[in-house]
Amino acid sequence: MFLTRTEYDRGVNTFSPEGRLFQVEYAIEAIKLGSTAIGLKTKHGVVLAVEKRITSPLLEPSSVEKVMEIDEHIGCAMSGLIADARTLVEHARVETQNHRFSYGEPMTVESTTQALCDLALRFGEGDEESMSRPFGVSLLIAGHDENGPSLYYTDPSGTFWQCNAKAIGSGSEGADSSLQEQYNKDITLQEAETIALSILKQVMEEKVTPNNVDIAKVAPTYHLYSPSEVEAVIARL
Amino acid sequence: MFLTRTEYDRGVNTFSPEGRLFQVEYAIEAIKLGSTAIGLKTKHGVVLAVEKRITSPLLEPSSVEKVMEIDEHIGCAMSGLIADARTLVEHARVETQNHRFSYGEPMTVESTTQALCDLALRFGEGDEESMSRPFGVSLLIAGHDENGPSLYYTDPSGTFWQCNAKAIGSGSEGADSSLQEQYNKDITLQEAETIALSILKQVMEEKVTPNNVDIAKVAPTYHLYSPSEVEAVIARL
Amino acid sequence: MFLTRTEYDRGVNTFSPEGRLFQVEYAIEAIKLGSTAIGLKTKHGVVLAVEKRITSPLLEPSSVEKVMEIDEHIGCAMSGLIADARTLVEHARVETQNHRFSYGEPMTVESTTQALCDLALRFGEGDEESMSRPFGVSLLIAGHDENGPSLYYTDPSGTFWQCNAKAIGSGSEGADSSLQEQYNKDITLQEAETIALSILKQVMEEKVTPNNVDIAKVAPTYHLYSPSEVEAVIARL
Amino acid sequence: MFLTRTEYDRGVNTFSPEGRLFQVEYAIEAIKLGSTAIGLKTKHGVVLAVEKRITSPLLEPSSVEKVMEIDEHIGCAMSGLIADARTLVEHARVETQNHRFSYGEPMTVESTTQALCDLALRFGEGDEESMSRPFGVSLLIAGHDENGPSLYYTDPSGTFWQCNAKAIGSGSEGADSSLQEQYNKDITLQEAETIALSILKQVMEEKVTPNNVDIAKVAPTYHLYSPSEVEAVIARL
Amino acid sequence: MFLTRTEYDRGVNTFSPEGRLFQVEYAIEAIKLGSTAIGLKTKHGVVLAVEKRITSPLLEPSSVEKVMEIDEHIGCAMSGLIADARTLVEHARVETQNHRFSYGEPMTVESTTQALCDLALRFGEGDEESMSRPFGVSLLIAGHDENGPSLYYTDPSGTFWQCNAKAIGSGSEGADSSLQEQYNKDITLQEAETIALSILKQVMEEKVTPNNVDIAKVAPTYHLYSPSEVEAVIARL
Amino acid sequence: MFLTRTEYDRGVNTFSPEGRLFQVEYAIEAIKLGSTAIGLKTKHGVVLAVEKRITSPLLEPSSVEKVMEIDEHIGCAMSGLIADARTLVEHARVETQNHRFSYGEPMTVESTTQALCDLALRFGEGDEESMSRPFGVSLLIAGHDENGPSLYYTDPSGTFWQCNAKAIGSGSEGADSSLQEQYNKDITLQEAETIALSILKQVMEEKVTPNNVDIAKVAPTYHLYSPSEVEAVIARL
Amino acid sequence: MFLTRTEYDRGVNTFSPEGRLFQVEYAIEAIKLGSTAIGLKTKHGVVLAVEKRITSPLLEPSSVEKVMEIDEHIGCAMSGLIADARTLVEHARVETQNHRFSYGEPMTVESTTQALCDLALRFGEGDEESMSRPFGVSLLIAGHDENGPSLYYTDPSGTFWQCNAKAIGSGSEGADSSLQEQYNKDITLQEAETIALSILKQVMEEKVTPNNVDIAKVAPTYHLYSPSEVEAVIARL
Repeated sequence: MFLTRTEYDRGVNTFSPEGRLFQVEYAIEAIKLGSTAIGLKTKHGVVLAVEKRITSPLLEPSSVEKVMEIDEHIGCAMSGLIADARTLVEHARVETQNHRFSYGEPMTVESTTQALCDLALRFGEGDEESMSRPFGVSLLIAGHDENGPSLYYTDPSGTFWQCNAKAIGSGSEGADSSLQEQYNKDITLQEAETIALSILKQVMEEKVTPNNVDIAKVAPTYHLYSPSEVEAVIARL
Repeated sequence: MFLTRTEYDRGVNTFSPEGRLFQVEYAIEAIKLGSTAIGLKTKHGVVLAVEKRITSPLLEPSSVEKVMEIDEHIGCAMSGLIADARTLVEHARVETQNHRFSYGEPMTVESTTQALCDLALRFGEGDEESMSRPFGVSLLIAGHDENGPSLYYTDPSGTFWQCNAKAIGSGSEGADSSLQEQYNKDITLQEAETIALSILKQVMEEKVTPNNVDIAKVAPTYHLYSPSEVEAVIARL
Repeated sequence: MFLTRTEYDRGVNTFSPEGRLFQVEYAIEAIKLGSTAIGLKTKHGVVLAVEKRITSPLLEPSSVEKVMEIDEHIGCAMSGLIADARTLVEHARVETQNHRFSYGEPMTVESTTQALCDLALRFGEGDEESMSRPFGVSLLIAGHDENGPSLYYTDPSGTFWQCNAKAIGSGSEGADSSLQEQYNKDITLQEAETIALSILKQVMEEKVTPNNVDIAKVAPTYHLYSPSEVEAVIARL
Repeated sequence: MFLTRTEYDRGVNTFSPEGRLFQVEYAIEAIKLGSTAIGLKTKHGVVLAVEKRITSPLLEPSSVEKVMEIDEHIGCAMSGLIADARTLVEHARVETQNHRFSYGEPMTVESTTQALCDLALRFGEGDEESMSRPFGVSLLIAGHDENGPSLYYTDPSGTFWQCNAKAIGSGSEGADSSLQEQYNKDITLQEAETIALSILKQVMEEKVTPNNVDIAKVAPTYHLYSPSEVEAVIARL
Repeated sequence: MFLTRTEYDRGVNTFSPEGRLFQVEYAIEAIKLGSTAIGLKTKHGVVLAVEKRITSPLLEPSSVEKVMEIDEHIGCAMSGLIADARTLVEHARVETQNHRFSYGEPMTVESTTQALCDLALRFGEGDEESMSRPFGVSLLIAGHDENGPSLYYTDPSGTFWQCNAKAIGSGSEGADSSLQEQYNKDITLQEAETIALSILKQVMEEKVTPNNVDIAKVAPTYHLYSPSEVEAVIARL
Repeated sequence: MFLTRTEYDRGVNTFSPEGRLFQVEYAIEAIKLGSTAIGLKTKHGVVLAVEKRITSPLLEPSSVEKVMEIDEHIGCAMSGLIADARTLVEHARVETQNHRFSYGEPMTVESTTQALCDLALRFGEGDEESMSRPFGVSLLIAGHDENGPSLYYTDPSGTFWQCNAKAIGSGSEGADSSLQEQYNKDITLQEAETIALSILKQVMEEKVTPNNVDIAKVAPTYHLYSPSEVEAVIARL
Repeated sequence: MFLTRTEYDRGVNTFSPEGRLFQVEYAIEAIKLGSTAIGLKTKHGVVLAVEKRITSPLLEPSSVEKVMEIDEHIGCAMSGLIADARTLVEHARVETQNHRFSYGEPMTVESTTQALCDLALRFGEGDEESMSRPFGVSLLIAGHDENGPSLYYTDPSGTFWQCNAKAIGSGSEGADSSLQEQYNKDITLQEAETIALSILKQVMEEKVTPNNVDIAKVAPTYHLYSPSEVEAVIARL
């Protein structure tokens, strides 16, 4: 069975007899090895919270960026291969800047997500910008546009879904269950921060500190929490 | 036998000794894993109904789009890989817009379907827009032009057929049998809605709700039903 | 023996030790799975008759096109992969239109056939228009030009022959035998229609109806028979 | 031994450990399956005679072309894959026309042969006009230029030789022996016709008729014999 | 297990079933064979120290360059394949010079590091400048810009981290442990020199001499220590 | 052992573990199957003599060209694949003509040889003019320029050597031994002719006649011996 | 173990699981089969001495060039595949000439060496000038520029080192040991000549003569010793 699978890996973008795309499935495995990230949408904005794995005390925690700004009204959290995520985010930044320049208004969150996924879908096609393998990363894209706040989830196949709340990475299974129990549409931003961090705390092996988590919100603009702001949320747990 | 097949998968677009194209057959398998979609043509328009698999209560049901507008007189339902379907639909949208711009009139439904299938057929050819593998998606294309209402069915080989009624996806076998029993050319649009939803109900494992099905019609323009309109059809079952 | 063959399939366009091109032979196998088509040349024109496999009562019989017009003086019947045939026919249509535009006169039937076969021959060459595999289709090309009526038969190797009568597809072996018995050069168009349909009737598993066969003639221009015209031929059997 | 060979077939243009090019050798096998063709040079011109395999009585014998004109002073007979031969002949026709246009005089027979072989040699090189495999065809090129009559023989490796007489195809071994016995430089054109046809008769399984052989001469211009002219030669046997 | 791995190496940039990129992991193995390099950040600048393997007394020690200047405010130490490192450093030099030319100010250390990693990430993509395999080298990039001193660590996957102190190469494991014990943010530049060299001394098999180590600092400009300056640090141990 | 070799043949231009290039070695095997050619340098010019294998009495001996003129001061003898040799000679002819046109003087023999070998070396590189495999041919290049007469020997690796005398082809081993015994620098051109032909006579299986050998000299211009001139040399044996 | 290695050879430029690049290692094996070359740096210039393998007395010794001039202030000795070395030297000659033309001054020895290695490193990249395999050659590059005399050693990986003395080729191991014993920085040019030749004498199987060794020096310009100058050095041994 296993040997049979390996036959299909050589062509990165071919169907198996059961209609599966193994390289995409393997890329999804890469994300299951990644750190956990959580997103929650409220009526007043979206909250993103991520685990940062500080493998050595000599590492600068602030340089482990797992939440990034795409445009002033869009941010994203990531899990998987960080270098791949940087390429996608850089692509999205160029797209949103071009849109502002051409149309004089911000790009919608859905269009930005679609642009990211178009690039992700075309792996193995030999294009200028596309990769020869799937991007090994999932993103939670938080934004605020004329339709209000929104949260999107993308996977390596180039598919995306709009969510109210979602977890990705190694702890996503447990975190998603907790989100289903604790989330409702009427929570405040502050409640969203507390839920996100309390769930991260459950799936992380270490004590939560301002050093090993990052929190950001888009409400309605992107803001990355300072260590003291993170400390304040931790204190509320 | 199985090992022999795998030999042919490496070249994505080569014949087997029996004259078969395995990558296309495997792509068709991908569609058998997809959600069910149903289309019915009446004298007054075409009805499309699709199952939406909402894998988590945290997902925004409206963001799981399995019925999409191509032009104001054409819509389509899909089953299989959603990211692939989006690429095809986007291609069709550009084609129909270009046609309107160049000729000052809407593109016919057959020409639109042909344009989609031309792209699907050329997988593995290294073209700008084509994919290195077959598109893993089937479409039901509903439209209304100078020839009246029409319904087309496409598969990953780039072939298309005009139908009176058709089901695709994991429940297509049972649904097609039911359609043959219940369909006749003189049904009204309302009867078509009822037949479509009652058949979907049979093949779905869950209770039918406005959250997990979508209905659209082209009569003569594309219209996606609102949750309350869907609720009304459900109530008639 | 079989394993040895598979070695040659990877390079789609290479000779086996016996001097054979297996991908072309496998494509010919694809045609043996196709529906039967028959052509007969008379002094007054050429008749084409094809079996249409209507796999479901919900399919629109008129949308299963197995006889197509290339130019007003040329038509063709096909057996094999329909999407491949459409590409060849579309190519021939462009060629004949260009010829009319450049030279102010219709393209001859032989030049049109040669143009089709040039495209078919160049599979695996990485050209703009050519395919990465052989075209899995045989054509019967019927036409009328300054040399009078003519009938050509093409196969996936890009070779063509001029014929008086010919059958292709799954029933071609039996149909060819019947043609040799019944055909002579002095038959009338009406006799040709009757012979074609009576032979189709023998090789088809179902009863012949205007729904599951198509008839066309080029005499001297292309004409696809209406259901009632087909019905009239059936009545003569 | 056989398995070892297959290793080398994947790269179409690579040496085996013994210094052999297998794809070229396999292409030569393809020619051994072809119909027999014979050429004889006399002081007054060159005669070409070919067997035509009419596999069905429904085939138009005149459409099975195995002798073709290249320019008015050059013709050729072929054995092997007919579609490949057509490509080479078409290439030679363009070359000779270009030469006439550029220099105002006919191209020599040797230069024409060299031009054909340059194309044949470059298989597997990815050029615009070249093939991805060797051309599976041998040619007998008959011509008449300022050096008088000449006869060239080409094989799939792109090599050519000047001959007084030569046979190619499935019956070439026996035919070459007969030619060595019966040929001398002082035969007349008529004697050459008779020798060619009597040898063809020996290697063909069927009775020789104007339907299943073609004769042509270049003396000093290309002329394809009419059925009655062929009948006259047959009568002399 | 091992055989399975080798299957994935053929496509240099594909995922294994566990979501791993083996070529990147193998490149990291190449670095584990390299000489050790150490970097420490202080408030007043960054210190880099490297082991130089002088395999023969006939080699010119000064030509074994493992610490190089990128711009006057950025230097780097390397471990792994030296020729690969030279390509990356040359790329970074061009980028920093272009930046100075275009913007009239030095490039930040982070942007320079990002530019290096962009090149490293795109291996196997067939770009102009990228390699067909991962770069087999890790870098410690020391710099000083408007944000003060900084130290970055890059690996063959194109990922980078900001560190306070870091060791790379064959002795990195032991050296990292020692750094964690001895490093704190308030050490002086002189203390950093002493710590770096005392740790190098532990992991090197030979006696430390000005011939087999190099020391450089960026404080705030790049300076490579002369043999006598190195001798002075050795004397302090 | 043999199986291991075959692994390396797929990439035509890769090293084996022992540092060997097998495709080049296999091409050298191709030459060992070729006809024998001999070259001798004297103070007054260079003599080339070649065996011509006339496989059939129907072949025109003068069309089997194994000695060819490159420029009026350079000629060459060849052994191996004749079609490959023709490509190299044609390349050299263009180079020498371009040189005359650009500089108004003949190209030196060494530069011409270098130009040939540059082309031979670059097999497998995908260049415009280069081949996808090594050229299966060795050349003896005889010339006369400002440095007097010279003789070069080239092999499929693109390497060349200047020689006083050299044999290539199937009989080269024995012929080289005889050359070492009989050659000295002070022989006359006539003695060189005699030695060359007497050695050819030893290695050929048939009687030497003006039909199955060719002789040429460059003294100081290229001259191919007429049959009667060859007869005169034979008479001296 | 061996089979595992062969897996990696197909991709010429990929890492093995241990982080090794086998094609480069195999190319280094090619050099171990080459003739020995030795270089020594003195304060007054650099001496190069090479063994020439004259495999046949009919070869012109002066045409076996293993020491070549790059520019008037740079020369090099080589071991390995001579055709590869010629390509590298030709590249270096163009680079140094371009530098003189652009900057009006000679290129430094290090820049010249770097330019050579840049080309060597990029094998397998599909560039215009690069090879599809590593260059199978090592060079000793001797030069004299504003920094005085210098000697560089390059290997197939594209890495280079500055040396005081170095041997390459089949006898390099023994020769390097001898160099370590006999070399010091204060030897005169004449002593360097003597040491180089006495060491060559030890590793060569034949008697040393002006025919089978070459000596060159750069002091400060390139000079290749005449046979009598070589004879004089031999006499001093």
